[in-house]
Amino acid sequence: GNRGCFSVREWIRNVWNFAKEDSNRVTFSLKVGLAVLLVSLLILFRATYHVFGGTNIIWAILTVAIMFEYTVGATFNRGFNRAIGSLLAGIFAIAVAEVALCTGHVAEPIIIGFSIFFIGAITSFMKLWPSLVPYEYGFRVTLLTFCLIIMSGYRMGNPIRTAMDRLYSIAIGGFVAVLVNVFIFPIWAGEQLHKELVNSFNSVADSLEECVRKYLQDDGSDRPDFAKNVMDEFSDEPAYRKCRETMDSSAKLDNLANSAKWEPPHGRFRHFFYPWSEYVKVGAVLRYCAYEVMALHGVLHSEIQAPYNLRITFQPEIQEASSQAAELIRSLGNDISNMKRSLRTSLLKRVQSSTERLQRAIDMHSYLLTSSHDLLDYSSKSFPCRVVPSNTLSSSASDFSGQLAAEPAGSNRPEPPLNPTLQKAPSETLLPAAAGLQAESYHETMKKQQRRLYSWPSREVDSYEEGTNGEDLPRMRALESTTALSLATFTSLLVEFVARLDHLVEAVDELAKMAKFRNEES
Amino acid sequence: GNRGCFSVREWIRNVWNFAKEDSNRVTFSLKVGLAVLLVSLLILFRATYHVFGGTNIIWAILTVAIMFEYTVGATFNRGFNRAIGSLLAGIFAIAVAEVALCTGHVAEPIIIGFSIFFIGAITSFMKLWPSLVPYEYGFRVTLLTFCLIIMSGYRMGNPIRTAMDRLYSIAIGGFVAVLVNVFIFPIWAGEQLHKELVNSFNSVADSLEECVRKYLQDDGSDRPDFAKNVMDEFSDEPAYRKCRETMDSSAKLDNLANSAKWEPPHGRFRHFFYPWSEYVKVGAVLRYCAYEVMALHGVLHSEIQAPYNLRITFQPEIQEASSQAAELIRSLGNDISNMKRSLRTSLLKRVQSSTERLQRAIDMHSYLLTSSHDLLDYSSKSFPCRVVPSNTLSSSASDFSGQLAAEPAGSNRPEPPLNPTLQKAPSETLLPAAAGLQAESYHETMKKQQRRLYSWPSREVDSYEEGTNGEDLPRMRALESTTALSLATFTSLLVEFVARLDHLVEAVDELAKMAKFRNEES
Repeated sequence: GNRGCFSVREWIRNVWNFAKEDSNRVTFSLKVGLAVLLVSLLILFRATYHVFGGTNIIWAILTVAIMFEYTVGATFNRGFNRAIGSLLAGIFAIAVAEVALCTGHVAEPIIIGFSIFFIGAITSFMKLWPSLVPYEYGFRVTLLTFCLIIMSGYRMGNPIRTAMDRLYSIAIGGFVAVLVNVFIFPIWAGEQLHKELVNSFNSVADSLEECVRKYLQDDGSDRPDFAKNVMDEFSDEPAYRKCRETMDSSAKLDNLANSAKWEPPHGRFRHFFYPWSEYVKVGAVLRYCAYEVMALHGVLHSEIQAPYNLRITFQPEIQEASSQAAELIRSLGNDISNMKRSLRTSLLKRVQSSTERLQRAIDMHSYLLTSSHDLLDYSSKSFPCRVVPSNTLSSSASDFSGQLAAEPAGSNRPEPPLNPTLQKAPSETLLPAAAGLQAESYHETMKKQQRRLYSWPSREVDSYEEGTNGEDLPRMRALESTTALSLATFTSLLVEFVARLDHLVEAVDELAKMAKFRNEES
Repeated sequence: GNRGCFSVREWIRNVWNFAKEDSNRVTFSLKVGLAVLLVSLLILFRATYHVFGGTNIIWAILTVAIMFEYTVGATFNRGFNRAIGSLLAGIFAIAVAEVALCTGHVAEPIIIGFSIFFIGAITSFMKLWPSLVPYEYGFRVTLLTFCLIIMSGYRMGNPIRTAMDRLYSIAIGGFVAVLVNVFIFPIWAGEQLHKELVNSFNSVADSLEECVRKYLQDDGSDRPDFAKNVMDEFSDEPAYRKCRETMDSSAKLDNLANSAKWEPPHGRFRHFFYPWSEYVKVGAVLRYCAYEVMALHGVLHSEIQAPYNLRITFQPEIQEASSQAAELIRSLGNDISNMKRSLRTSLLKRVQSSTERLQRAIDMHSYLLTSSHDLLDYSSKSFPCRVVPSNTLSSSASDFSGQLAAEPAGSNRPEPPLNPTLQKAPSETLLPAAAGLQAESYHETMKKQQRRLYSWPSREVDSYEEGTNGEDLPRMRALESTTALSLATFTSLLVEFVARLDHLVEAVDELAKMAKFRNEES
């Protein structure tokens, strides 16, 4: 008793939250109720029932129930489908019925039967045609109405009268549906599209920041199984999930834009031919940017990882670049949301200079990303054909790594936030952390990585017995280099993401121009 | 006249090709025609018309037209929705009508009106609930049928009789729809899902190969505008477009799997509870792999590019790794297609060893990816705090690059296909090409790249006047390094793609186990 009571209460709370989350849901429900009630009144009152042609008025209810959609535009669109479909069906039906009537008693049912088969096959074939798929409902209505009209006409005589009565009551139903939908708390597809696009901007920005934060936080110790992650859809990364929803929302944006085109000017979207299709284009460019975020996320969950210490070495620059980029995206979303155009000079400047700083940091410390001593071992041992003066390089490289190891590992003081004017800061703050890399968990991590990589197809492949013992060393090194290059990949993807933002800015500018957003000096 | 004639012929050819492309389309159309014809016969013959309760038989046509779906599973699913919806509506309607009848003449229409409003609002609210969205059609049917039954009952008396007659004719319609759909050239959702998944495997493999081919072909000279490419959806890359369709096909797979669950064992899928949901899971893992292909494609179209000569340096390894990976994917797709389990030992071995070879090549030539002399310039000029014995390193580096430049640039003979047993081949064949890199178009490309990067937000930002002249050099170098790292990014993504294939192999194995694919020693 107590548990059942609790779960009912839980259930009611869920429903309540669902309704509160978007009050349009309740509005929509009540509107549907109202619309069917209004049409029912025509039947409930004896007077109107007889005025509007008796039993046929039932088609008005059917129309309301089928035509009433969530947004104004979708209702118009569906109404259009229904109207054209019914009209075509009516015309076909009357034409066929007249012909059938003239042919006499025997041929009539044959002609009618054949026409039904023909219309059924044609409409079904046409609705499979890619460009006609959105009008699927219209074809269904055509078939349905055609059959009903021609059948009623055959059994009850006077097909034209039947068709007209039916079209008439369908029109009443459509009229009521549109009136209620437009004039009582209308839910505009345009407004929904606008909000949806702004939300997409925010979710891409969130996802970028989340991904970078995780990448820099993660010390590789408690990495959950990837397969598990794929299955529970990365439940500990809410922003990533929202971003994936954004990736999959192209159909949703298309639908909303299609619906919005049917809507008259309303609310904030005051001029005719508002460029709803531009919203879809901006969405496409945004998704194209988001592919890079997906790839960043891929690096985050990659099995081959740069060691934590190496990642943390570039933390200030990565952090800076990503948060500047996120800010730019948010500001773009915000501008769309407020329908204003602002100059993004200072923001663009900051994004660009922070990205440049990241590039420079990577470049300056590129020796960390490649283990140059491997090259020497290769050249001196396995490939005697090389004529490089390897001893010179070799000695200098070992000098250098000795130098690195000699740096005090304990001295990595908390790093100050990077100041744009303080150009020399990176190299001073980076090196101690880099030293720690060599000193402590680096080889540990390497071994773990190796285990991971080599356990890879271990279930079926055992090619390792084939190799000579001498090959073990180079393999290990190939791995070291690859793990470090994973950091290079991460930063390259980040830089590429920033480069793509240019196209996003352009697309948003184009939208702002076409939709006549108001200018505002930020 | 001639032109119109031509376009009609064109149009007919298009329709013909569309039909030939998938003959199921024609089958489906003819089946719909047949189903409506069969139901119509009940009305056309006077005898059956009177047996099956007169005008109500029209509901059978309505049911067929609405219920007939492309696949067997979808028809069952829709039929289920319609049946449950109609049943619930019938029960509600009878209950409300009986209550209303007892309350007398005045209260009756009020109760009926209120109940219609209530049912309209409740069903509309419920169909917005996320887990109930797939049953949207059922809720619509419930509302529709409820209104129709209660209205007919009110105006014509005897609601139970009306309800039963209607349910009866709906059942006939449903029965005909199911019979025709199942027994005449059935189109199984399961079969479609099976094919769809296999096609996804092929399109990912194709896209990978296309992307790598373009990356290695491309000499950067005729790169079309990116924005144009985004807009015309990369029309010159058919495989990429197919792959993007695969990315967006999650909803399609879900739908097919949902439909397939309703289907009885059939054709090749002979046992009950066939694991259709595993297909969706495999599809998800495949899409997860395909994200890497998208990222590779992103690098291909990135504005920051590694110089052509550098890319071509690693051509044999990249080509080898990618084509082995593509072959593995195709073999997985093929195994699913033929419903067999084969040991993929040798294939896995080859994929893995070719990836390893790529890693090793990158590692061995990592000096090409980072311009190590930059480091020295930095340390000696800008950062005097460094205590690296820079002169030693500096000299060795310049020795080395001198060595590189001294290599005969014209001697790059056609490279033989890489033989797995010939482990030393890479270094011998790679160096000449690498030398060409230094010699000719490298600085050209660099300048172009720089123009690209710096023209970036040029419309609004002009921060370059701020910097001192001395900063120009490091900036140029940051760029060089980043462009080279773009190659590292490409290979890292490729390696990561191969690493993910492991999960794909696992998912396919799981599917093979659950679906009881037959074993076969390959």
